[in-house]
Amino acid sequence: MKKREQKLQYWQAVPFTKVRIEDSFWRPRLEVLKRVTLRTCLDKCEQTGRISNFAKAGGLMEGNFEGIYFNDSDVYKVLEGVAYSLMTDRDPALEQEVDRIFDLIAAAQEEDGYLSTYFTLEAPDQKWIDMERHEMYNGGHLIEAAVAYYEATGKRVLLDVACRLADHYDNLFGPGKRHWVEGHEEIELALVKLYRVTGEERYWKLSLWLLEERGHGHGVGTIWNREEWGPAYCQDDVPVKDIEKVTGHAVRAMYLYAAMADVVLASKDTSYVGALNKVWSNTVERNMYITGGIGPSQHNEGFTHDYDMPNETAYCETCAAIAMVYWNHRMNLLEGDAKYADIVEREMYNGALSGISLSGDQFFYVNPLVSTGDHHRTAWYDTSCCPTNLARFLPSIGQYVYALTDDGIAVNQYIDGESEMQLSGDGPSVRIIQRTNYPWNGRIELEVQLETTATFTLKLRIPGWCKSYQISAGDTVPKDIETLTNDGYLVLQREWVPGQTIVLELDMPVEAVRARSEVVANRERVAIQRGPVVYCLEAVDNPEVEYDSLAISAHQPMAINDRPELLGGVVTLSGRDEEGRPITLIPYYAWDNREPGFMQVWIPEAKEEVLYSS
Amino acid sequence: MKKREQKLQYWQAVPFTKVRIEDSFWRPRLEVLKRVTLRTCLDKCEQTGRISNFAKAGGLMEGNFEGIYFNDSDVYKVLEGVAYSLMTDRDPALEQEVDRIFDLIAAAQEEDGYLSTYFTLEAPDQKWIDMERHEMYNGGHLIEAAVAYYEATGKRVLLDVACRLADHYDNLFGPGKRHWVEGHEEIELALVKLYRVTGEERYWKLSLWLLEERGHGHGVGTIWNREEWGPAYCQDDVPVKDIEKVTGHAVRAMYLYAAMADVVLASKDTSYVGALNKVWSNTVERNMYITGGIGPSQHNEGFTHDYDMPNETAYCETCAAIAMVYWNHRMNLLEGDAKYADIVEREMYNGALSGISLSGDQFFYVNPLVSTGDHHRTAWYDTSCCPTNLARFLPSIGQYVYALTDDGIAVNQYIDGESEMQLSGDGPSVRIIQRTNYPWNGRIELEVQLETTATFTLKLRIPGWCKSYQISAGDTVPKDIETLTNDGYLVLQREWVPGQTIVLELDMPVEAVRARSEVVANRERVAIQRGPVVYCLEAVDNPEVEYDSLAISAHQPMAINDRPELLGGVVTLSGRDEEGRPITLIPYYAWDNREPGFMQVWIPEAKEEVLYSS
Repeated sequence: MKKREQKLQYWQAVPFTKVRIEDSFWRPRLEVLKRVTLRTCLDKCEQTGRISNFAKAGGLMEGNFEGIYFNDSDVYKVLEGVAYSLMTDRDPALEQEVDRIFDLIAAAQEEDGYLSTYFTLEAPDQKWIDMERHEMYNGGHLIEAAVAYYEATGKRVLLDVACRLADHYDNLFGPGKRHWVEGHEEIELALVKLYRVTGEERYWKLSLWLLEERGHGHGVGTIWNREEWGPAYCQDDVPVKDIEKVTGHAVRAMYLYAAMADVVLASKDTSYVGALNKVWSNTVERNMYITGGIGPSQHNEGFTHDYDMPNETAYCETCAAIAMVYWNHRMNLLEGDAKYADIVEREMYNGALSGISLSGDQFFYVNPLVSTGDHHRTAWYDTSCCPTNLARFLPSIGQYVYALTDDGIAVNQYIDGESEMQLSGDGPSVRIIQRTNYPWNGRIELEVQLETTATFTLKLRIPGWCKSYQISAGDTVPKDIETLTNDGYLVLQREWVPGQTIVLELDMPVEAVRARSEVVANRERVAIQRGPVVYCLEAVDNPEVEYDSLAISAHQPMAINDRPELLGGVVTLSGRDEEGRPITLIPYYAWDNREPGFMQVWIPEAKEEVLYSS
Repeated sequence: MKKREQKLQYWQAVPFTKVRIEDSFWRPRLEVLKRVTLRTCLDKCEQTGRISNFAKAGGLMEGNFEGIYFNDSDVYKVLEGVAYSLMTDRDPALEQEVDRIFDLIAAAQEEDGYLSTYFTLEAPDQKWIDMERHEMYNGGHLIEAAVAYYEATGKRVLLDVACRLADHYDNLFGPGKRHWVEGHEEIELALVKLYRVTGEERYWKLSLWLLEERGHGHGVGTIWNREEWGPAYCQDDVPVKDIEKVTGHAVRAMYLYAAMADVVLASKDTSYVGALNKVWSNTVERNMYITGGIGPSQHNEGFTHDYDMPNETAYCETCAAIAMVYWNHRMNLLEGDAKYADIVEREMYNGALSGISLSGDQFFYVNPLVSTGDHHRTAWYDTSCCPTNLARFLPSIGQYVYALTDDGIAVNQYIDGESEMQLSGDGPSVRIIQRTNYPWNGRIELEVQLETTATFTLKLRIPGWCKSYQISAGDTVPKDIETLTNDGYLVLQREWVPGQTIVLELDMPVEAVRARSEVVANRERVAIQRGPVVYCLEAVDNPEVEYDSLAISAHQPMAINDRPELLGGVVTLSGRDEEGRPITLIPYYAWDNREPGFMQVWIPEAKEEVLYSS
């Protein structure tokens, strides 16, 4: 359908604390996350000196700074994850353990509020002269962790540290004060979070000012300069409202756009909306892999030119996929368009989820779409942003399930569980119970529980991958549905009776997907997708074929097989290649959890006669 | 997959008398057929003098021949339909009525066996000088009716007439006797049927001889000549074993190919197989509409050049669609490939079924894919081949459901009901119970009933439109199915326990279909199909749009709506056009059963940005 007139929606997020996840897909992953991943990350932070750096900076122990200048951020991200975990599962022992770390962090904060242990310990005279040293990046993650922990426990100790730090930035930088462009965006969205929890408007205004500093020569060329990178690397090439194309380091770019959306949501100033829409189209339509992966190049951990999407050397950093969720979640709230929730879904089930092993303690930094067998997850990295980003992303996925619209609820993700929501304005309290085996089955039952009959609008996302669906809710849903809007939602506007159940059945066949013809790497190839899940061939399931020495027909039907015992419970797809050899595909996210061997997503397409002339 | 080596299968047909149809789609149609269509056709044959022509030729009443020289055939076809109907539903009154007609037919046969009332009454001195006068065409339909009635009732009266007629042909024509090429094929497949019921080999040998007469100048140019037609019009341009391209009159061509397949099945001489495969590909890949319709041109009621497929002027004679079933059914038996059963299905639910109104008494001769509102079914035609072909096609559709393979059963069509089959060789007797709401739902339960455990192979057709499916049968079907062969069947080779149930779930989403780019008429258009059912827009459901003044996106999801109260019970599809206006589609076969207005199958496709680069 033709693009509708732009009308901003300003939906409200429903925090994941309101969303109980009870399904067989995410629930076990959240258990592993809590039991294994957070524990592993905390231990690694301890073992690598990341935590003791705070003790040293706070004068509580002797010694030099260990590691890289942005290592503080890893600790903060794990703590943010712990906070999210504590919100849904109280754990006094864990809480006590992280309280100890918070005390170290508080000790490491300098008197004026400054906090970045590398500079305190190693280079106190070199503060704020190099935009690439992640001073505010560290600070941003501190703030996010602090906000999360305050919301989880009500404890202000870290939030106070965060406010002092933000106030310190606000004292140093801003209109009439010093210029600053932070090389790696993060502080900008953290400051908006801090504003939301404290109500202090100066925090989002500082965020806005930091965004506005970009593209005017205050950063690259002034406080950093390396010819091989140029200002686009850290999105300092143009003023942000003039952005049209996605550039540079992928995670940085996504954090920037997420922060821009945050500032629009906080300020209701729509100046950035045009740029956000342009760069979104450019990102999604020309620079995103089928897995949701972005940033093809290892060189800059980011973007090169449109349609440059090699498969084997695809960088597709796990953090970038997670950052895509952050950005698209905000765009969905801002514009109320399901296409953004489609991207959230794509990352959740593919590009972001592939970053973590089923065991919860092995991680991909890089997520190629092909491997000849030598690419494997590892337990930790010197730059361990990806494990720690997963540690905070996964426990908070519940927040992507619902949004509050101005007159009801938008159901953005289909996950079995329950959620209690207070509708906007004077709306009633509504409990929604989802019963579904998504993503393996497209049938979703939604039960609406409420005190008394009430009128509101329920919007159900019809995923972009879905070509047809059935909806039923007794006699009251029109037979010929007239309610599918052009923003991707099926709109049920009605008087709801307590206990009423809607059944949405999304057709979920196997689809052979072709890339845009501009993508050279995927010409004459198809990828296999079912529902939101992208599939791949892995050697262990396919002893009869070799990497790239097979071809499949897009018309050959595939069997859909429930395999509850395999890879934590998956649906595999099986068929035959052009030679008639059996092939089996597994979800992309699940690869490299068994014996090593080749993996590929884009498979050569068999040349075949076209059947039926018309 | 690559084409397998050709291996002929010689499957056996399972007669429709063994197949009880109990579903909500076909069962009501068979009731209407019996109650309305056969009655209407008999009455029309009576009213138009078609029946009294026999009485007159037999000297039982006075008067001149009425109508056209091939009118005898209409009576035979209705009688064939009555016979099929009597096989499943005894009806003494109806039987008595047609017995009276058989007596008239027997009376009309001349002493030497000749039978064609036009010549007996009007032109006794002009026999066998014009191949276009349908003498053997009439005779062929007599034979088919006689075989059917004999099988239905055991009464030989008409079979004896048929044998005398065939013997008469055999006396006149054949090696060392007179040459003959019949302009409209039909006798050739009738003679094979007569061979099957009588065991007389000379009948199929006469059929073979008649086939071999073609393409040698014995017909066009000798016993008929009209420059504007040429020998390709009646498939007399090349010897039949050299046929590569479909030519001329569509019904004639299909009857020819059906007869060629019949002769291979009867003789096991494979000389025609190459030609059959070539002309099948040429027909299906370059000359068949999405509805299964064939023969685009009114001029010759047939084919023009490859990819010439106009929509509004599409001729697509109902008889040609039915004839495609006849041919493809035989090809399936011969080669054991599901692609032929796919075509049978395509005709059953689209191109053939559109020929008859829901009321059972209005018929299309011509089945265009677009109408501006002035094309309607009528009760009868001067040339009424189509109503009478429907009268014999529909009551016998049960024969397309199963075939007996050399080691089991092939399930070719999915129709709720029961069937009792005696497996080939010393195989056991097997009852299969199908439970399904096909074609509206892709779930099929197959219960296998048999006396004791037995080992045989059940082949389930995975339809060509189906991209993915699930199969389950307790624990004994391999999880990763390894049994989908390259001939389109899922092969379950196993020991069957009495009462065992298999569940096959064919994914049946809405599909936007594009034509081959060579088809000029359909460029930048899409057609909508779900399962085997082709959909169309009809004016009555779409007050907001006009014919061809809308465009739809292939990516816009559609709602699937059960409408048991509409058009005899259909599933409608609803969505929005490019402008956001609601649109509703109904099955193509069901159009022109309500208020007149536009109809179209191929809908302009909305230009849109491609979402997702890879």
